[in-house]
Amino acid sequence: MTKPTVPLAASPARASTARLLPACLHLIAPDIAQVEQRLQAEAASASSIVAGVLSHMLGGGGKRLRPALVILSGRASGTPCERLLEMAAAVEIVHVASMIHDDVVDAAQVRRGRPTVNVRWSTQVSVLAADYLIARLYGKLARSDGRYALGVLCRAVRRMCDGELAHLQIGLEGDLDEERYFSIVSDKTGALMSACCNIGAHTAGASPGRLEALQTYGERLGTAFQIVDDILDLTGEPSSLGKPTCNDLQTGHLTLPIIHVRRTGTPAVQAELRRLLRSAQPKNCARVVALLNRRGGIAYARAAARRFADQAREALGELPPSPERRALEDLTDYVVSRGESPA
Amino acid sequence: MTKPTVPLAASPARASTARLLPACLHLIAPDIAQVEQRLQAEAASASSIVAGVLSHMLGGGGKRLRPALVILSGRASGTPCERLLEMAAAVEIVHVASMIHDDVVDAAQVRRGRPTVNVRWSTQVSVLAADYLIARLYGKLARSDGRYALGVLCRAVRRMCDGELAHLQIGLEGDLDEERYFSIVSDKTGALMSACCNIGAHTAGASPGRLEALQTYGERLGTAFQIVDDILDLTGEPSSLGKPTCNDLQTGHLTLPIIHVRRTGTPAVQAELRRLLRSAQPKNCARVVALLNRRGGIAYARAAARRFADQAREALGELPPSPERRALEDLTDYVVSRGESPA
Repeated sequence: MTKPTVPLAASPARASTARLLPACLHLIAPDIAQVEQRLQAEAASASSIVAGVLSHMLGGGGKRLRPALVILSGRASGTPCERLLEMAAAVEIVHVASMIHDDVVDAAQVRRGRPTVNVRWSTQVSVLAADYLIARLYGKLARSDGRYALGVLCRAVRRMCDGELAHLQIGLEGDLDEERYFSIVSDKTGALMSACCNIGAHTAGASPGRLEALQTYGERLGTAFQIVDDILDLTGEPSSLGKPTCNDLQTGHLTLPIIHVRRTGTPAVQAELRRLLRSAQPKNCARVVALLNRRGGIAYARAAARRFADQAREALGELPPSPERRALEDLTDYVVSRGESPA
Repeated sequence: MTKPTVPLAASPARASTARLLPACLHLIAPDIAQVEQRLQAEAASASSIVAGVLSHMLGGGGKRLRPALVILSGRASGTPCERLLEMAAAVEIVHVASMIHDDVVDAAQVRRGRPTVNVRWSTQVSVLAADYLIARLYGKLARSDGRYALGVLCRAVRRMCDGELAHLQIGLEGDLDEERYFSIVSDKTGALMSACCNIGAHTAGASPGRLEALQTYGERLGTAFQIVDDILDLTGEPSSLGKPTCNDLQTGHLTLPIIHVRRTGTPAVQAELRRLLRSAQPKNCARVVALLNRRGGIAYARAAARRFADQAREALGELPPSPERRALEDLTDYVVSRGESPA
């Protein structure tokens, strides 16, 4: 990986990145700082309102986990090159665009402690600005040597939409077993993380075996990540999440703790859960969470996330030992331990 | 162009297409029928809810003007080939996806006489289903030999979003002169029509000169089309438009008849117009339209559309005479005469 060509110490982008980067990603902090500069340049060169929207989204922080997956995957599996940074910035644009549309879908008010684009601007701006960002990015990839990445990203986005639509359609009272939940969660979050690893490996010229291992890693890591996200939506602290909790109950997304208790609880427990879910008023959320905690739903979901994270780690066995492989391994712990102890 | 390989007479798709196709497009009716079958196959192979959404949009009819531009451009400028049909279906998917998102942006209730996707399903489904359609289409183009078309389509979509965002931002009381209005309208509708002509010409292996001429044709034709659309939004019959009129007044889109009267009217006329626009209640719409008619705003906009249509026709001078060039010429008349006399 080439060294940064501009001084980073004075860059506010770097300061905020360093603050947010999980410890296991410090290895690639200079790369992430460069990705950050590319993202800021993307924002600066967009048309006026989109520039503001992208800056707003980037300024909200975020861990840049997906760019990190591109860079670490490339470095752990092949020959690092400048183009990894371009691809890392590209996946973050896709992620930002999907978050903007997701916030419309969920009618979310707050993200990362700041008003969502639909609140700060409008639903109209959210729909169009994200479409603009995707069109601009894909156009660049199509015109440059980015056809492979483009195909991979499009497949991931299609799976994300598919998973989200399926999840929405089922609703809180719908029929959703564990396997289908895992498949939905894998589509919603595993698909893009897997795409990041795939693109990183491909860009660095990895062997097919290593590329496939990294794809599996990303898929499982993303599944674990989303299961934990779903747990934190119930049990997290709004201040550290940067958004209100129990969103999934408001938007009708059935998640693993509920699925588990619904399947294993006594008839009385099941009836109580049903009753609480039916009137998903804010005051009921705390009671739902208490019930799920008491009946082992939260612990069960944590264990499931751990299982997927372990599978992710195992997939890395295909790669030669390296600091980057180690960082990817550490990421599996980071992902499942989020919210377990005070930050 | 290869002949259809399946019997068309019995196809319900063809029946409805034949009904909707403007007379100048009868020349390519068999091709459009094949495009229709490709579109239906696209719908059938999408995931369940998206399949329903796409069928709903396709079933609403539409003139398939953009697929026709691909096919006619290809046939008028180069060597027709099977691939033109694939590209024709592709541009219609982009058009459908953009209509779905536009209906969210405008909170539209009715399109082509049927409930919009946001009404029939929900805003959530609108946002995600259109994203899914675009991701699937672009993924296919990226993996096949569609990189050129993909680049062209992405640029067009970026311009469409840009134009729409700019138009929204200005609002009814904003500062919008004629030149800027033409540029916005060109972005909103000219960009995709120009892309269709470009893709058709490129697919058929047209010379750079012919390709450029067709691009200009599409750009100007689309501009004329949108100016007329803006007029019909004020003066059209809801029953023949398939949607309510005076939408632009509700959504705050400033259009040419208003821009003209605002610039040329006496101070008293300007004040009256301002007053009417400020309280854009349904009952005021008829009074706005009457005022614009009285002060020549509608006629002025019709003349402007005619000017752009004439420029489109002139651009075709680069092409050798052919029935397809003639059809493209006739399209310019069709576009500007929409809504002038009873259908």
